[in-house]
Amino acid sequence: MSSSPSRPGDGPYTARTPRVVAARKLQRRAERDETGRFLAEGPQAVREALRARAVRELFATVEALSRYEDLATAAGDRVSVVTEEGLAALAETVRPQGLIAVCDHVDVPVPDALARTPRLVAVLAEIRDPGNAGTVLRTADAAGAGAVVFAGDAVDPYNGKCVRASAGSLFHVDVVRSPDAAIPALRASGLRILAATGYGDIDLDDLADEGGLAAPTAWLFGSEAHGLPDELIEAADARVRVPLHGRAESLNLAAAAAVCLYASARAHRKTRAH
Amino acid sequence: MSSSPSRPGDGPYTARTPRVVAARKLQRRAERDETGRFLAEGPQAVREALRARAVRELFATVEALSRYEDLATAAGDRVSVVTEEGLAALAETVRPQGLIAVCDHVDVPVPDALARTPRLVAVLAEIRDPGNAGTVLRTADAAGAGAVVFAGDAVDPYNGKCVRASAGSLFHVDVVRSPDAAIPALRASGLRILAATGYGDIDLDDLADEGGLAAPTAWLFGSEAHGLPDELIEAADARVRVPLHGRAESLNLAAAAAVCLYASARAHRKTRAH
Repeated sequence: MSSSPSRPGDGPYTARTPRVVAARKLQRRAERDETGRFLAEGPQAVREALRARAVRELFATVEALSRYEDLATAAGDRVSVVTEEGLAALAETVRPQGLIAVCDHVDVPVPDALARTPRLVAVLAEIRDPGNAGTVLRTADAAGAGAVVFAGDAVDPYNGKCVRASAGSLFHVDVVRSPDAAIPALRASGLRILAATGYGDIDLDDLADEGGLAAPTAWLFGSEAHGLPDELIEAADARVRVPLHGRAESLNLAAAAAVCLYASARAHRKTRAH
Repeated sequence: MSSSPSRPGDGPYTARTPRVVAARKLQRRAERDETGRFLAEGPQAVREALRARAVRELFATVEALSRYEDLATAAGDRVSVVTEEGLAALAETVRPQGLIAVCDHVDVPVPDALARTPRLVAVLAEIRDPGNAGTVLRTADAAGAGAVVFAGDAVDPYNGKCVRASAGSLFHVDVVRSPDAAIPALRASGLRILAATGYGDIDLDDLADEGGLAAPTAWLFGSEAHGLPDELIEAADARVRVPLHGRAESLNLAAAAAVCLYASARAHRKTRAH
């Protein structure tokens, strides 16, 4: 059952076809912000985007349509066949595997995310590196977080590098874009606010031993270069450091976030089991 | 007390000075392998390299010599003053902050690393991405690992990206380069061999609850794209998966390694405390 769409009297789109030219502009943040759309590359992201009902148009090469027949079928009349050269014009990676989707933004307002009472939330404050942000998003999803807040001047979650690093998780958790870390709202919904900082006064292991991770938790993570802003460190309920057992001066952001989020996941699992 | 070396009748080195030209060749693996040397960029790496007595020659701009006087003093007559343009020719990053050191390889043979009876070891099997390898090296150091084994066709630990991602940890832990994962030697020195794999039959949390992380441990990590080779999965004492609580299909390598290594660090700490 192939859904390869026929377009009578019209070959595959090229790099100069107006719809391809328009979609390509979504590589720029200004265009993404203005249109509320973004690009997702490759079969994994496209599959998750289709499940999340976020796909507006799926650009696919003839080869990709036959290789990923399930995705072509799911996209139905939203498929636009493109030449290899047309796809390359849209792609930010060397190997998009023949598929690029134009998607609608998927973020939700803070109250919507909190209405689902997540027990674990990650707040990315002023994180500028899109690869780091996407990796933390992926890790937060894996650790069972219900929401990830991109706060302040954090990177655009729809930046191509962030979308790719998230490996589909952008479509799994509630992504929130907020001008600030929304601490009052997080706290009002019963989340304990923990600031992850190398200068924290409590060690993550000690906190876990004290039962300090059992409550629903929102973790605040800052940029690797500058850490968390002072006002967020002060606003948190506790300032937590990942213990450094060897001679490394610090962990990189994604590793620190993985250790913190999984410590929470483990504490929550024990709480449920008892 | 400035140690800015004077070279009578000789200005700062330029990109065409033979020693700069020779050092630049160390950006290539073949040259690194042949000479047993590599480049370390920036003040943090240079500081750690000096502490590890690995520095042969320190190329520094006049500005960097005055900004990092302690490093210039420590390097003494190994300092070679270069022009900004000479430094740029040596640098792989945009901002090497005026300092690049030619270092001797620091890796040690397997028996030397094991003679120090490390309680935590990370084995990187067939990991090709230098940024990933360097990040895991940094995380292993932070978690208190005594040795990191680059096994098989793993990336060159002296690749510039790996050196930078390790953030100095290349000079902190015993780095071992081995044609294979050295499992018999690791096991003979009392290390329990755990393979980190998404298809593991035991969950990391369950293993921790059972006390399965209390023993000295060597973790095997494979590439993100291909995972661990089958023979290593089979050779391990246990196959361990990081639990996935959300909808992510997997964790990225650096995040998975952080969670595994810190679970071991936490178990070892509890063991020592009792």
